[in-house]
Amino acid sequence: METRTYPEFSTDYPLLLTTIMKRPVNIYPDRIGVIYRNPETAQYFRFTWKQWYERTCRLANALKTLGVKPGTPDEPGDRVATMAMSHHYHLELYFAVPCSGAVLHPVNTRLSLDHIVHTINHAGDKILFFDDSLLSMVESIYDRIKGTVEKFVYISDVSGKPDSKIQNLYVYEDLLVHASPNMEWPYLNEKTIATLCYTTGTTGLPKGAMFSHRALYLLCVHQMLKDFMSNDPAYIHMGETGVILLNTPLYHIHGWGIPFRTIFSSQTLVLPGTFTVDGFCDLVQTEKVTNTSVVPTVLTMIVEYEHLDRYDLTSLKNILVGGGALSLGLKKKAEAKIPGFTANSGYGMTETAPSTIASFVKSYMKNWPNEELDKIRVKTGLPYPGLEVEVFDADGKPVPRDNTAIGEIVIRGPWVMKEYYKDPEKTRDVWYDGWFHTGDVAKVDEEGYVTLADRVKDMIRSGAEMVPTVLLENLTAMADFVLEATYVGVPDDKWGERPMAIVTLIPGAGETEEDVLNFLQKEGVEKGKITKWMLPSYILISSSIPKTSVGKFDKLTIKKGIQDFASNAKKF
Amino acid sequence: METRTYPEFSTDYPLLLTTIMKRPVNIYPDRIGVIYRNPETAQYFRFTWKQWYERTCRLANALKTLGVKPGTPDEPGDRVATMAMSHHYHLELYFAVPCSGAVLHPVNTRLSLDHIVHTINHAGDKILFFDDSLLSMVESIYDRIKGTVEKFVYISDVSGKPDSKIQNLYVYEDLLVHASPNMEWPYLNEKTIATLCYTTGTTGLPKGAMFSHRALYLLCVHQMLKDFMSNDPAYIHMGETGVILLNTPLYHIHGWGIPFRTIFSSQTLVLPGTFTVDGFCDLVQTEKVTNTSVVPTVLTMIVEYEHLDRYDLTSLKNILVGGGALSLGLKKKAEAKIPGFTANSGYGMTETAPSTIASFVKSYMKNWPNEELDKIRVKTGLPYPGLEVEVFDADGKPVPRDNTAIGEIVIRGPWVMKEYYKDPEKTRDVWYDGWFHTGDVAKVDEEGYVTLADRVKDMIRSGAEMVPTVLLENLTAMADFVLEATYVGVPDDKWGERPMAIVTLIPGAGETEEDVLNFLQKEGVEKGKITKWMLPSYILISSSIPKTSVGKFDKLTIKKGIQDFASNAKKF
Repeated sequence: METRTYPEFSTDYPLLLTTIMKRPVNIYPDRIGVIYRNPETAQYFRFTWKQWYERTCRLANALKTLGVKPGTPDEPGDRVATMAMSHHYHLELYFAVPCSGAVLHPVNTRLSLDHIVHTINHAGDKILFFDDSLLSMVESIYDRIKGTVEKFVYISDVSGKPDSKIQNLYVYEDLLVHASPNMEWPYLNEKTIATLCYTTGTTGLPKGAMFSHRALYLLCVHQMLKDFMSNDPAYIHMGETGVILLNTPLYHIHGWGIPFRTIFSSQTLVLPGTFTVDGFCDLVQTEKVTNTSVVPTVLTMIVEYEHLDRYDLTSLKNILVGGGALSLGLKKKAEAKIPGFTANSGYGMTETAPSTIASFVKSYMKNWPNEELDKIRVKTGLPYPGLEVEVFDADGKPVPRDNTAIGEIVIRGPWVMKEYYKDPEKTRDVWYDGWFHTGDVAKVDEEGYVTLADRVKDMIRSGAEMVPTVLLENLTAMADFVLEATYVGVPDDKWGERPMAIVTLIPGAGETEEDVLNFLQKEGVEKGKITKWMLPSYILISSSIPKTSVGKFDKLTIKKGIQDFASNAKKF
Repeated sequence: METRTYPEFSTDYPLLLTTIMKRPVNIYPDRIGVIYRNPETAQYFRFTWKQWYERTCRLANALKTLGVKPGTPDEPGDRVATMAMSHHYHLELYFAVPCSGAVLHPVNTRLSLDHIVHTINHAGDKILFFDDSLLSMVESIYDRIKGTVEKFVYISDVSGKPDSKIQNLYVYEDLLVHASPNMEWPYLNEKTIATLCYTTGTTGLPKGAMFSHRALYLLCVHQMLKDFMSNDPAYIHMGETGVILLNTPLYHIHGWGIPFRTIFSSQTLVLPGTFTVDGFCDLVQTEKVTNTSVVPTVLTMIVEYEHLDRYDLTSLKNILVGGGALSLGLKKKAEAKIPGFTANSGYGMTETAPSTIASFVKSYMKNWPNEELDKIRVKTGLPYPGLEVEVFDADGKPVPRDNTAIGEIVIRGPWVMKEYYKDPEKTRDVWYDGWFHTGDVAKVDEEGYVTLADRVKDMIRSGAEMVPTVLLENLTAMADFVLEATYVGVPDDKWGERPMAIVTLIPGAGETEEDVLNFLQKEGVEKGKITKWMLPSYILISSSIPKTSVGKFDKLTIKKGIQDFASNAKKF
């Protein structure tokens, strides 16, 4: 343990994940704080805060025994990788690793195997923790990572070591049994790197965004501040009585920050392993879940679930929907079936840890009718307190607030990534002129609300004009028969590119490509939301749309097969 | 303007009061944000956030013209003193001075003139801003501070320069008129000193506690976090719809932090100049104030006000009472007369900026009856999130959580003062072994609730035992006929000291010294809250109790006249 004294403990007192981890055990040692339901066995595991904290202490001591070395502000500590679902073991790793001074690398297990291997070798992970559901995956890449990873730790609800070719294999629970439940956590320098999160690499190899304890602590407190400042009637301030179901995988941008804020505010954290619709319903009913967040695809699975009415979901006070456009049809269905349902939006990325812009209802809107509020909530939103967000034109000047001019979103603030691990060149591509450049395009209205228009690289170039695809996607999803919609450019001799819409319909809907076009004409062109030349020249109603590992539209795959898609589409 | 770029704007992005100041103008430029009512003229001044921000920019530019120099993390900038009531001018100084990189020194104008002169000369204040209500006070000390203070600035609602002997006298509004409303605020290092706040000096000369931008930013966000995490049904999360009436003087420990948190969360801030009961009622009614906080003495003035029923106070959602023990009689009266009334408690001091421990209702207490909740709320409370608070015995070990053992409160965390200005010796007296030593004594219960027992130096030594006076004071105030009560030690041949109670009664009450003793016997000794030897040997029912400039019992004055007090008291 480092020994520090005045003045480090006054104004320089370090902002550490350790402070977040320790709060519930100090206030509610004997209250159940962490709950895991194994989605395969439906078995429940419940831990008081003291039990969970002591397990985390044991893990930290086990890490020492395994030889994990802490870092300094100038040099990251040993990297510790996780390949695991959302369970208490993973949550223990989420704190024990960084609070020991080492670097947590939560591997995105939905990446291609090549990319998984790349991130592990690029990070130089010294130890890999993985759970039994991923044993065969780890075995399949073992020969390609064993030169990097020195030790492997197997996580399972079932005791014993599996029969495996993996050498230097330890068993998680055995390590904990033999470790002390007492831990003197080091007072790290707050700039010590805590996590290494790789991007999904849709346009090349994944890049490793690094976050310090300070960055994640400040992310956490400003996430709570945003909700505190807002007076959105849809947002219920649950305080410590909240029971939060985590649907976001822990490897996906810090689980949207939910593990940090939930634990700092001593809310009960409910972990589902991975999302299953029956697991979701069972957990909400059994644990009386008050808040959760889902992406639209997951919401569809819930509202379509045939046994939904067998469950009591009335404990739900608020379900946020984010991560994609919510169709009007799905919204209506959800409102009818799920209590406490609200649609919200937000914007962030791996490099921003993730929170940057989010739905925000201004104070004078408080008593507006719900329909008007929904129009505010579907805007990407306002910048988080504590963060500077601008939309810059090509000259690096803020675009006019006319809700028309588009520019690139640039950001700076305490939880924006400082650099990509071992990649100064890629870092320079995004960090220049004092701003982090997101590569995303948006417009700003008179009230300061930002609306995301597109990825720079996804913009469709038609003649001299740029067609913003996200705007079109969100507009199309507003049709009550549309489930999802994406847009890509089809090469065109005259215009360079012309937009193609690929659309899936709400189950049971019988609408046609003409109906889509009519909707865009009526709700888009006639209401001034888009111009006529933005209307798609190709529309394809399809049974599904290709997606990336984190559920985004996979435009790279679509572009590779663009001629096939275009020949199946209806041409206008 | 300093020009910085990556990496300072990522994880090292500075935590500055500038970020707090800028938020409302970005979101609500045209909404009324700051309101001042002159208590003499009853004239109202209302400013939109844009107007207030531009005035603050003008002031910052005027400070440059006046030659005010910014500081560095190693060297404080020029000190700028204020002697002023709570009005928009003072609030402009609260941000313009520190956000320019200089040091704000809000002079406590209720100190003795000698102490006021001392703090100004000790701080080396280069400029003194004062308002017209304090002109004669400034003139009376002018000859003793003119060697230090180079320039004086006169603040008044009325235009023109006063006829005064003060040289180098400027007029605030004239300075603003001639300054630009545009300001490129510097991106200061977050460790730059922002404020210099002197203690009230009850035991010697006032000491100057220094606070950096980082310290005050983190104070502000953790104050909001505490309320966010709590689920106390008495606390209404007003978010941006809150209208906050500031009753705490701005020179008193950053006005309890209210100016920072109110502005960061874009709540309307209502400034009364100084407290008057008709001004209070008028402001609540006119501005529809939702939240305010008062000390018990002020609460008495409100509930006793003969014209109270002429005002509509129904906008009030929450009144916190802090800063002293609330008597049961006063509580009942207040509950009957004032909507949204709640008694809370808390603990802090100049050196802690101020927030450290505060009322906190735990989640499982949420549905307790009000009477049970009140028992929780009158405990000093739980430590703030983000702060380490311990109660140490003489060996520097935490006292047992038995609600009996007493020890000294020690604190560390990001908003605890780093040092006294130009006083390394006094700094060493309080900062050692890695903890700031408060000199206050407390006990801790099984739930972790801290209850303040006494100042170390105020403890009464009776035989081998220590009599904790704050415990006795709070217990005595629980009698429904008691308004206020304090305890001091009277020299005693046999015991060394014996406790004396000095008590004031609720208006109209006719109880006697015997009634006080009977109450203490019945509610204290018989219920195990105090032991028999703690009962006072002297009780004096008095019409008033000497107070310090900030409303605390002035035990130094009482001790100086202890024989007079004792000879008037009833002896038991």
